[in-house]
Amino acid sequence: MAERTVFVVSDRTAVTAEALGNSLLTQFEDVTFKQITVPFVDTKEKARDVAAKINFISKREASRPIVIASLVQDEVREELLKCDGLVLDFFDAFLGPLEVELDRKCSHTLGRAHGMSDPKRYNMRIEATNFAMSSDDGQGVQHYHQADLILMGVSRSGKTPTCLYLALQYGVFAANYPLAEEDLESGRLPQVLDGFRAKIYGLTISPERLRQIRLERRSVGRYATAQQVNFELRAAENLFRRFSIPSIDTTHSSIEEIASTILNDTGIERRVHS
Amino acid sequence: MAERTVFVVSDRTAVTAEALGNSLLTQFEDVTFKQITVPFVDTKEKARDVAAKINFISKREASRPIVIASLVQDEVREELLKCDGLVLDFFDAFLGPLEVELDRKCSHTLGRAHGMSDPKRYNMRIEATNFAMSSDDGQGVQHYHQADLILMGVSRSGKTPTCLYLALQYGVFAANYPLAEEDLESGRLPQVLDGFRAKIYGLTISPERLRQIRLERRSVGRYATAQQVNFELRAAENLFRRFSIPSIDTTHSSIEEIASTILNDTGIERRVHS
Repeated sequence: MAERTVFVVSDRTAVTAEALGNSLLTQFEDVTFKQITVPFVDTKEKARDVAAKINFISKREASRPIVIASLVQDEVREELLKCDGLVLDFFDAFLGPLEVELDRKCSHTLGRAHGMSDPKRYNMRIEATNFAMSSDDGQGVQHYHQADLILMGVSRSGKTPTCLYLALQYGVFAANYPLAEEDLESGRLPQVLDGFRAKIYGLTISPERLRQIRLERRSVGRYATAQQVNFELRAAENLFRRFSIPSIDTTHSSIEEIASTILNDTGIERRVHS
Repeated sequence: MAERTVFVVSDRTAVTAEALGNSLLTQFEDVTFKQITVPFVDTKEKARDVAAKINFISKREASRPIVIASLVQDEVREELLKCDGLVLDFFDAFLGPLEVELDRKCSHTLGRAHGMSDPKRYNMRIEATNFAMSSDDGQGVQHYHQADLILMGVSRSGKTPTCLYLALQYGVFAANYPLAEEDLESGRLPQVLDGFRAKIYGLTISPERLRQIRLERRSVGRYATAQQVNFELRAAENLFRRFSIPSIDTTHSSIEEIASTILNDTGIERRVHS
């Protein structure tokens, strides 16, 4: 299989450039990419150092490196562009057309996107994360009035990572409520959820996948038996149907896909944009 | 202030396109952007619907919308490109040069980046998240041998969100250990950390910022007094110095910046790439 070295070079955290590089490069399935992330390249000198590293690799390997860059300052970017790699910089590609469209020059300010330029945004994410932590696994029901969303599902259906992702990525206040055996047997919604039905969203998963996840966690007792898993999932899905709770099957979905689907379905607003 | 509507249109979750749009648009400080995210636009019909929405807004507002897109299928993208907005699509901009460079066609496959195409990657993030949850706030010290990193700092210095972000974004196993008053007074590293010193990274923060955060949380008692906050931070920083623990001041840093700095300083490998 072909192999290529990829440099992800950013004047700040490299979070956006990494995501972009990943989206682009995963389109070439039969190439293996070895990724080197270099964040905080915010001076000409640092750009020159990275360019030297890229040139070093370029000489050593059969093909030149691919460089995914996000450098907002022209003079820093120009330094990097002198390297032997193929440099794809999204500021370079898109700021020009945006300047024309908006009829003004961009500010070329570092770190506006993932920096602390907006402390309100930062605080919102921290508060949302605290909320998710303190209302994880059925805790903190007294704060449900603050929740944007209450995720409901059986143990290990993906509730906790989804809540945390929604908090960190979008500042959304998401609680999660695990369906316990009493809830599943009674076929009723737990009383603590009275008045919050409109906030509930259900997660379900295939019995095979759930068994597999539970087996890795605890292989003794009935927790991961086919019978138990089948009973819980069937009862949970019945509950969702009976109370018209929207739900998503997480079996083949990533955390991003689950989160994005829920926001799209419910219309819950992203409080911050990553 | 000028106002513009921005559509973020993606055939999958829109996570990457949102990050890209945010990086680009925050460069234009004197324009207010109203963002509408439309994920899962994966057919020509859906692209036509979005184009119609964009055209509707375009007629109603003084300026046409800006459209940040990530549509990997040519025929879907072509449908969207017919709209009246300014469409900036990163696949459109970068796949061409990459195909030339790699000397092969891209697979035009949906959702490779944030999808479940790689279950190992998915499991790694979930496991890392479980690890962060179960070793939050000094819990789970018996699992420290599994940790890539142990974040140490006083209460509310940013440990928990950073650990969760490292888990969800990079699959990094990060525990966090809060410095309690006993630790700070003794001036010694807690015994449970014996043997794990190389994994410790310190977080510190300015007294003013810490007071502000603590006051929001609990305004009674000495928790948020200037005296207490000064004592804790001075003692923590002394500890970091004495035991040569690398540290970062989180006062003006976002979660992404803290995470990125730590990975850069320590050389801890990203287990997954977002």
